[in-house]
Amino acid sequence: MSNWKKIVLILGLGMLSTGSVQADENDALNELLEALHANGTIDEATYKAIRAVAEADDATQEDDEMSSEARTAETGRESGPDPAGSPRIDTRGKFQVTSADEEYSFRIGGRVQVDGTVFDEDIVSHGSGSEMRRARLFASGTIGGVWGYKFQYDFANSGADGIKDAYVEYKDLGPAKIRLGHFEEPFSLQNMTSSKQVNFMERGLPQVFETGRNLGVAVISGTDHWSASAGFFGTGIDNDSSGEDEGYGLSGRLTYAPVNSNGRVLHMGGSLSYRDTGGADGVRFSERPESHTTDIRLVDTGFIDADEFYRYGLEAVWVHHRLTLQGEFLSAGLDRGNRGPDADFEGYYGEIMWFLTDDRRPYSGSGGDFKAVNPKSAVGQGGVGAWQVGARLSNVDLIDAGIDGGEEDNLTLGLNWFPNRNLRFSFNYIKVLETRGGPFPGDEPDIFSLRGQLEF
Amino acid sequence: MSNWKKIVLILGLGMLSTGSVQADENDALNELLEALHANGTIDEATYKAIRAVAEADDATQEDDEMSSEARTAETGRESGPDPAGSPRIDTRGKFQVTSADEEYSFRIGGRVQVDGTVFDEDIVSHGSGSEMRRARLFASGTIGGVWGYKFQYDFANSGADGIKDAYVEYKDLGPAKIRLGHFEEPFSLQNMTSSKQVNFMERGLPQVFETGRNLGVAVISGTDHWSASAGFFGTGIDNDSSGEDEGYGLSGRLTYAPVNSNGRVLHMGGSLSYRDTGGADGVRFSERPESHTTDIRLVDTGFIDADEFYRYGLEAVWVHHRLTLQGEFLSAGLDRGNRGPDADFEGYYGEIMWFLTDDRRPYSGSGGDFKAVNPKSAVGQGGVGAWQVGARLSNVDLIDAGIDGGEEDNLTLGLNWFPNRNLRFSFNYIKVLETRGGPFPGDEPDIFSLRGQLEF
Amino acid sequence: MSNWKKIVLILGLGMLSTGSVQADENDALNELLEALHANGTIDEATYKAIRAVAEADDATQEDDEMSSEARTAETGRESGPDPAGSPRIDTRGKFQVTSADEEYSFRIGGRVQVDGTVFDEDIVSHGSGSEMRRARLFASGTIGGVWGYKFQYDFANSGADGIKDAYVEYKDLGPAKIRLGHFEEPFSLQNMTSSKQVNFMERGLPQVFETGRNLGVAVISGTDHWSASAGFFGTGIDNDSSGEDEGYGLSGRLTYAPVNSNGRVLHMGGSLSYRDTGGADGVRFSERPESHTTDIRLVDTGFIDADEFYRYGLEAVWVHHRLTLQGEFLSAGLDRGNRGPDADFEGYYGEIMWFLTDDRRPYSGSGGDFKAVNPKSAVGQGGVGAWQVGARLSNVDLIDAGIDGGEEDNLTLGLNWFPNRNLRFSFNYIKVLETRGGPFPGDEPDIFSLRGQLEF
Repeated sequence: MSNWKKIVLILGLGMLSTGSVQADENDALNELLEALHANGTIDEATYKAIRAVAEADDATQEDDEMSSEARTAETGRESGPDPAGSPRIDTRGKFQVTSADEEYSFRIGGRVQVDGTVFDEDIVSHGSGSEMRRARLFASGTIGGVWGYKFQYDFANSGADGIKDAYVEYKDLGPAKIRLGHFEEPFSLQNMTSSKQVNFMERGLPQVFETGRNLGVAVISGTDHWSASAGFFGTGIDNDSSGEDEGYGLSGRLTYAPVNSNGRVLHMGGSLSYRDTGGADGVRFSERPESHTTDIRLVDTGFIDADEFYRYGLEAVWVHHRLTLQGEFLSAGLDRGNRGPDADFEGYYGEIMWFLTDDRRPYSGSGGDFKAVNPKSAVGQGGVGAWQVGARLSNVDLIDAGIDGGEEDNLTLGLNWFPNRNLRFSFNYIKVLETRGGPFPGDEPDIFSLRGQLEF
Repeated sequence: MSNWKKIVLILGLGMLSTGSVQADENDALNELLEALHANGTIDEATYKAIRAVAEADDATQEDDEMSSEARTAETGRESGPDPAGSPRIDTRGKFQVTSADEEYSFRIGGRVQVDGTVFDEDIVSHGSGSEMRRARLFASGTIGGVWGYKFQYDFANSGADGIKDAYVEYKDLGPAKIRLGHFEEPFSLQNMTSSKQVNFMERGLPQVFETGRNLGVAVISGTDHWSASAGFFGTGIDNDSSGEDEGYGLSGRLTYAPVNSNGRVLHMGGSLSYRDTGGADGVRFSERPESHTTDIRLVDTGFIDADEFYRYGLEAVWVHHRLTLQGEFLSAGLDRGNRGPDADFEGYYGEIMWFLTDDRRPYSGSGGDFKAVNPKSAVGQGGVGAWQVGARLSNVDLIDAGIDGGEEDNLTLGLNWFPNRNLRFSFNYIKVLETRGGPFPGDEPDIFSLRGQLEF
Repeated sequence: MSNWKKIVLILGLGMLSTGSVQADENDALNELLEALHANGTIDEATYKAIRAVAEADDATQEDDEMSSEARTAETGRESGPDPAGSPRIDTRGKFQVTSADEEYSFRIGGRVQVDGTVFDEDIVSHGSGSEMRRARLFASGTIGGVWGYKFQYDFANSGADGIKDAYVEYKDLGPAKIRLGHFEEPFSLQNMTSSKQVNFMERGLPQVFETGRNLGVAVISGTDHWSASAGFFGTGIDNDSSGEDEGYGLSGRLTYAPVNSNGRVLHMGGSLSYRDTGGADGVRFSERPESHTTDIRLVDTGFIDADEFYRYGLEAVWVHHRLTLQGEFLSAGLDRGNRGPDADFEGYYGEIMWFLTDDRRPYSGSGGDFKAVNPKSAVGQGGVGAWQVGARLSNVDLIDAGIDGGEEDNLTLGLNWFPNRNLRFSFNYIKVLETRGGPFPGDEPDIFSLRGQLEF
């Protein structure tokens, strides 16, 4: 044993004695040091002493690099090995590289959703078919521990419309972070839940009141038991070229989860959003019948001449092991000034989900939303994946103050299969129960839809 | 020596004794173990014993992670180092990360093709010029050993049209795999061969009968000596928003290679494809004169009112070391019902290729296609790369049943230079030998074209 | 100690004795060897002997792979670990993988620029608002030491217009390299300086004479004290489909930096560009008032019927530690033949920049341009980042030979904050001092603009 100790000490001190040694050479030593310390071959004091020596060596080396001005001037950056040791590389289910000191990381990922839909049509022709619903890539990362960023593009869109998340965050504002760029205005649970992780293939009808992604700045905070976020937003990616000033908006969301442990979650929340239209075309609310394969909106107000409008939402979820009960009420109110009477629209949905397998829907208290299901037993590793069934009732009412946008009630039955944490297959049966008023009164199709989803 | 053995044993057992040790620390041990076993320092039994201990430790650790519910709930995934050891990273000619157990991999790559073309014009003005022919990026990977995926986008296109491969595969169906998403319908050798690896800059004239990529599902199988694939397909990326139901198609291809060894290949194959147009605009066959720089199609049927049509193809290749002989016959038949008489179109090409250098065109029996040339001696490493010359005759006849789409005969002479496995430069001289009928009868230009191609 | 030596020798020789050993196993040995040699445990001779043995083993192994034809034929490439050892992975500020022998590298990166702009309008309505100015991703790399490539796409554009750099380089032409593909024609300092690194948010008014990116081929050379580049270019990404031949151009730039050391730079340069319009729409010069949020061009010649035109530029910079003085004069001359009198337009700018913190603007002599500021003390690591203030006067005069494109004078005041090498926040106040003639004579708005910029 003492021979071994000596070798380690000599290796460690040897590093100090030479300025030109590269950090890569420290890896084996560091690994050895940690292993030997972890299994008790060397004691805490010895470990720390040699470790300090190795780190001092790293620091010296870094100073050398910083002062090498000519080289930096030519390239604009230092190059050379990471002074903190070999990065960690994740390959299992995602690709991410993280520096040894965890101060820097870089990740590349994406999602692909392919849909096939058959309409049992009623009055209107919707058009059965297949569709690439989403095809996104993203790069995200951490810089110097305190900064984060994400850039995401959806190739199923065209041009700048495909830019989804594109933001920078400063994460060291006490318990909060500040985010700048293009991202979702904080509003409504189903809106804030990733499209990969909503319970059914499409969000419920009240999604008509979504705020969507805009350019803005927000403060975001939270712990395991609550989340709070609020921001100021302009409009989307493009400055409209009309010469008119852009509109702007303010949005905020607050959630509270008194229960969040042992597979049980009680979640409550509320959202509020105000928007000034900036003299643009006005406001329009329209929504497909919970299937994106059709371009027909059974509810549609058309453009309403309005200066400003507000939206609010209330949400609640109860998760008890395999069971999820979830519901939201959302509403929009238009202040039309002299242009017409004020109008109020509203919608709600309620859903119940049940895992057939012993799986869970992971909840994030600090985000106030739900994350990817990670099946306990994946297909190909002796398991059948996670299986989940569910039902949803949803309603939206866009009839008020002389505006006939229509009212719609839907029932959705769903089956989700998660073979592993990267894949999901969903089958949804959507029955349009009732369509009153609107552009297609009385059109009540049955919709059968399948989705294959990849996340990487 | 026995001291060394003890150290290894202690390191291995030490891993077991501590639950919190990270997998990274196992890397050095694993490497050491394998090296010591490989060179005979430790015997098989000892190696296996310690290895088992190390793996048991990994498994324990993974279980710990799985049960760490709070952490998973917050992030939606386990984090931490790969329990199976350090991933392998490929950098030579491609970027790929593969987990130590080979169950997971992630790759990023792409291609760029830049063309410059001069037309010695005859009747019609084609417009000499340069063009970014293709500019693609892709991400692909393996999940849990049995799942594969690929997502590829061509930035030389616009919007969702740029989505090329976008699919998920399950690879563990006995000798076959099942593929779901957006990918090439199996049909015709030149169609299935990557645009990076076809013998000339553009595929031969019968490419007018290509099936292209569609959303669908297919079963794909093969060995070194045969390949079989068949699938059901809807239409492309977008659901058409007309309210009409989409068309659909069935395609299959079978290839057999009785000879596939020692630089010799004999390949034969056939393809069959049926398509129902789904009440869309009808069917149109049109093709550029084997140069993409012009937008003029010397053969073009215009839209033909038809319910359904079928296509078939026969193909054969003989590779003898430096020599390749390749040919295909392709045909399309339209069933027009009451809308007009049925029509049959056809085309063929034959090509001969010869490597000036001692290089080979690699063949994949299980795919029934050809792969990237990897020159034996790369430029910059003392070599001149691979040099190849070739000639092609091609014909397409789109005149039948009163439809005058024209007939065209082309001769192409080609020179390919592969400086290394990532680069290719091609020069093609295309002589339009004869153009009968069609939109531009008698137009017989000479075309001189250069391409620079990067694959990474 | 002598025991240790023996172990190392045996490990090394053991590698030779087995053909199937993988390169990964050599990593630990190589690291061990280098460390032991570095700290003097083994002497130079012993080190070199074992090293040679290890490398011979690598070479043997690589030959084995090359001759493994079946495997290559199936995949089109060799797979397996990098024979030269573990790649180096950069994570600090960028993601890059470099093979151990530095012959291969792969990098992924990008930039995001988000602008918010308020106009204090004068005559014309410009429209305050926010904008995603740029959102780019790129992949770049090195192949076999002598080849380089880059592909970059801007998602704030649409379709093929978003393709920015897309080229391949051969770097081993003596002191020069040759570049083929889509890239900036060499012309003008501010044009050649990355949009991430220009001193103000937008380039000065004479940017109206930019050459932009085109498909072409160029020779590029340089040392610490001079740079030279010249090329032949067609037009942009798309071949125009008009049937007309494309235009073409010749551009060159020469810079000389007699002083380039110790934080001091004296830089002088000149550019020349000729372009034949190829019978296209003609020539148009128009420029926004140094803000991209508006679509209004205060100077605009409209399309001028011209066969050919030339541009030239003169540039000079003086950097003295924190201070930068920079100026350019740019001009365009149109040869209109019989279509009208020849016309000459011109513009200039002069700017002064001062770092409030002890930071530098890195200069590349061989590129004749400036690189990313890398603050000495980053935010989050005990510092405040780099802070810089500056002012610019710029002018453009597009009035000549009966063409009234207008003349404009601008003053810009700027503040740049670089929290670390990846982030930049800029505030610009732009005062349009005078607008004479042109489409909006007398419109002299004040512009207040903020930018958040991420580079990764």
